[in-house]
Amino acid sequence: MRKQFLVHLKRLLHQGNNMSLNEAKRIAAYKAVDEWIKPHTKVVGIGSGSTVVFAVDRLAERVKTEGLQVVCIPTSFQARQLIVENNLTLGDLDRFPHIDCAIDGADEVDSDKVLIKGGGGCLLQEKIVASCAEKFVIIADYTKNSQKLGEQYKKGIPIEVVPLGYVPIKAKIEKVFGGEAKLRMAVSKAGPCVTDNGNFILDWHFDSSKTFDWNKINSELLQIAGVVETGLFVGMATKAYFGMSDGSVKEQN
Amino acid sequence: MRKQFLVHLKRLLHQGNNMSLNEAKRIAAYKAVDEWIKPHTKVVGIGSGSTVVFAVDRLAERVKTEGLQVVCIPTSFQARQLIVENNLTLGDLDRFPHIDCAIDGADEVDSDKVLIKGGGGCLLQEKIVASCAEKFVIIADYTKNSQKLGEQYKKGIPIEVVPLGYVPIKAKIEKVFGGEAKLRMAVSKAGPCVTDNGNFILDWHFDSSKTFDWNKINSELLQIAGVVETGLFVGMATKAYFGMSDGSVKEQN
Repeated sequence: MRKQFLVHLKRLLHQGNNMSLNEAKRIAAYKAVDEWIKPHTKVVGIGSGSTVVFAVDRLAERVKTEGLQVVCIPTSFQARQLIVENNLTLGDLDRFPHIDCAIDGADEVDSDKVLIKGGGGCLLQEKIVASCAEKFVIIADYTKNSQKLGEQYKKGIPIEVVPLGYVPIKAKIEKVFGGEAKLRMAVSKAGPCVTDNGNFILDWHFDSSKTFDWNKINSELLQIAGVVETGLFVGMATKAYFGMSDGSVKEQN
Repeated sequence: MRKQFLVHLKRLLHQGNNMSLNEAKRIAAYKAVDEWIKPHTKVVGIGSGSTVVFAVDRLAERVKTEGLQVVCIPTSFQARQLIVENNLTLGDLDRFPHIDCAIDGADEVDSDKVLIKGGGGCLLQEKIVASCAEKFVIIADYTKNSQKLGEQYKKGIPIEVVPLGYVPIKAKIEKVFGGEAKLRMAVSKAGPCVTDNGNFILDWHFDSSKTFDWNKINSELLQIAGVVETGLFVGMATKAYFGMSDGSVKEQN
């Protein structure tokens, strides 16, 4: 009897620990949409990536059942497609430069809510949209939650650069900040990955044992001629929701 | 006799004062090329605009007569065409990330050698090339020489921005810095002017009676998400040459 109970318990724990990452993303996304999209919300920024898919699902469901009247501003071609496929109202920053709330994923979120974004290559439009949003809410699974940047996400900080300058820009980043800035290569085409805005991405692998002032680093990176935008989002996130492996949602203010 | 002399003098002065702007550009360009391009110079940055045409003329002449071995890095499609048409050796920053000397024009140069560039829309590549150059030499006619930015050039500071963000970026610039940021319209096509890099330009008309810390302004403009580059070049120019109306060349160190 006791043995059977232990086997059952072990199975439950095992199930809990292995709750799919997709389910973790889903519960974070649903909670954020339910808490931040209110009946009076007019303009919503739609982030990019796999977690945002669940947020758009939930938003579309609520538009249908509650009759919400929201205009959605995309942060990428992927986001635009999600909006269109879900029959949501597509808008743009020309007509809606003020966004009530933007909901987006992140590759990593540290204890100060500093984000690494751009693993999916969409950092530039994401940062423009986030910078126009009154509230900027992050949704992610538990593997994105860390104390210190670099603990979880090992692919470096994405930096979007003008193609013709990538060689000297790479050299400058490595000289000034150390580490290695690797040109991101494409998988579905030959040569480098090209962003939605026609630029290249350098993934800057920094020494994660060191402590950095991310606000300063971001500002200094932007001073380099030919750096269009960085995947460092400092002081922008209002709140982060992490879907945990036990099925709960951790909130970070 | 005295009358004849006065008529002659007047004619000379008139000629002097009205020396064509093209001739002023030419003498500045020739002097800069002669002083900065040495037999050992290997890599030269070629700026954009009407004054640079004379610099390339002179460089091509010296390559022919002196057998200089220089590789030329362009700052725009226009510069690239000038290099090719003059049978100079075309290079790029991938192979030549270190430039010995870049020669470029400017829309205005103040007493601290702070520049406004980008009237011709080529500021982004110009700034990347200048930032890779050991020496950065400015050539211009006397109408570009001022004590304080805005005294001479009345079309504002060009700011290159990501097209989809131009409305909120314009609003932010005007809110934070005052003045008006006007979307530059094209003449040879309908709608806005599109740069060599596929972006738009906001010409920021500032209150020129005020005093600005241009280094700070430049840095703050670059922090705005969607601003790709500014036409403010602060602390970059090594020396400026101005062709004057009396046929002399004024040098500013």
